Amino acid sequence: MARLKLLLAYVGTNYHGWQTQIRTDKIVPTVQTEMEKAIAKIIGYHTHVHGAGRTDAGVHAAGQVAHVDVPELPKMNWQLAINTNLPPDIRVVEVEAVADTFHAQHMAKGKQYAYRLWLDKSYTPPWLYPFVWPVGPLNLEAMLEAKQYLIGTHNFESFKNAGTNLLSHVRTLDKIWVESEEKEQIWYFEADGFLKQMVRNLMGLLVAIGQKKLQPEQIPSILEAKNRRIAPRTARPYGLILKKVYY
Amino acid sequence: MARLKLLLAYVGTNYHGWQTQIRTDKIVPTVQTEMEKAIAKIIGYHTHVHGAGRTDAGVHAAGQVAHVDVPELPKMNWQLAINTNLPPDIRVVEVEAVADTFHAQHMAKGKQYAYRLWLDKSYTPPWLYPFVWPVGPLNLEAMLEAKQYLIGTHNFESFKNAGTNLLSHVRTLDKIWVESEEKEQIWYFEADGFLKQMVRNLMGLLVAIGQKKLQPEQIPSILEAKNRRIAPRTARPYGLILKKVYY
Repeated sequence: MARLKLLLAYVGTNYHGWQTQIRTDKIVPTVQTEMEKAIAKIIGYHTHVHGAGRTDAGVHAAGQVAHVDVPELPKMNWQLAINTNLPPDIRVVEVEAVADTFHAQHMAKGKQYAYRLWLDKSYTPPWLYPFVWPVGPLNLEAMLEAKQYLIGTHNFESFKNAGTNLLSHVRTLDKIWVESEEKEQIWYFEADGFLKQMVRNLMGLLVAIGQKKLQPEQIPSILEAKNRRIAPRTARPYGLILKKVYY
Repeated sequence: MARLKLLLAYVGTNYHGWQTQIRTDKIVPTVQTEMEKAIAKIIGYHTHVHGAGRTDAGVHAAGQVAHVDVPELPKMNWQLAINTNLPPDIRVVEVEAVADTFHAQHMAKGKQYAYRLWLDKSYTPPWLYPFVWPVGPLNLEAMLEAKQYLIGTHNFESFKNAGTNLLSHVRTLDKIWVESEEKEQIWYFEADGFLKQMVRNLMGLLVAIGQKKLQPEQIPSILEAKNRRIAPRTARPYGLILKKVYY
């Protein structure tokens, strides 16, 4: 057997997120399911594709990482073979043969996400709609002040949506930065790990601050509360893209 | 009544082109149908939305123009009202009240289209897939030489697909220019009018020349033949976008 590390890019619009969902009432298309179907067509049997992390329905990826065990086939061009069997909105960008000790999820040391805000609420170009959150004008200064309160090691339970049980809600948010243009802001978040919907919840907070619904100085008490209901609403998934997984 | 001139942008991926199609076997989503449904929801009855021209299934628009007659409602924000009733992949960019002598199709003096070629055949980013034709490497010099044979007033019957009967196949192609980057080329075409699928057929020709399947010097005889079967295949629709309609 050979273990492959796969670098994946996808548009999440047509998928119910990364993870395979078992439902008895209907078939739910997910990125993982599409990956496993494509690989099964090549190797002739079903095998598990392990992702570095889940992405939500509607969330995109430019640098998702996964691993999979396949038969040794030295002449196989795995990238071409898998892409040929995938829908065009999911692509293998790179394939690397790795040691069988590599694990896409357990060995991930950090991740980088980007979130794209659209500032002209009256008109979102139709080709951007699946990739942005149209929020209207924002006060960038307040948001930049706010991010200083978030960077560092904190208990982020106030920014974790229900659905997973974890031993610890402490994460280290290494960097937040923004690329700002007239009609859009792209916010980058880099951490050793993210809780469920944490990036979207941080983005929801920063937008609320940019809209002057909240003051940057309120952030320490929001963190302190360790209560999701204290923090503003979750940003919509479409603006989010998983950019990089670090090992 | 008031006549409105509408500037429209849309992603054509989910539509069977601009024009309403009457079929007895199934409902076919088209941009015109969506526009007429949205306006009917506002004014309470069905009325015709006249487009400057048809776009094919999968073809996009940044500057389609249409006109429609609606009741005089001085306080109505038509852009907001129509957009609220449209799916997000079709947007009204601008609304202008015009004289009732304005006609989006009959008064159009020219159009500008752009076609996006993707040069890295091994990998198309999934978010570009609906907007490009992945053709692989091309010889730009040969294509630039070729475009000189196309510019000007010619009978373009060799570049017209079947389906419409016209009195004349003579059109004046005013300009062709290209924006060229490492992995893509965007070709612009400006003419007083285009025959059915003429841009896609011109693009197909230029790509064949860029792939050295054909020589630029062969173009005059292809034009002379006035026969669609002499010219290379039609470029796929996804790469095409209607940029501007001139009046």
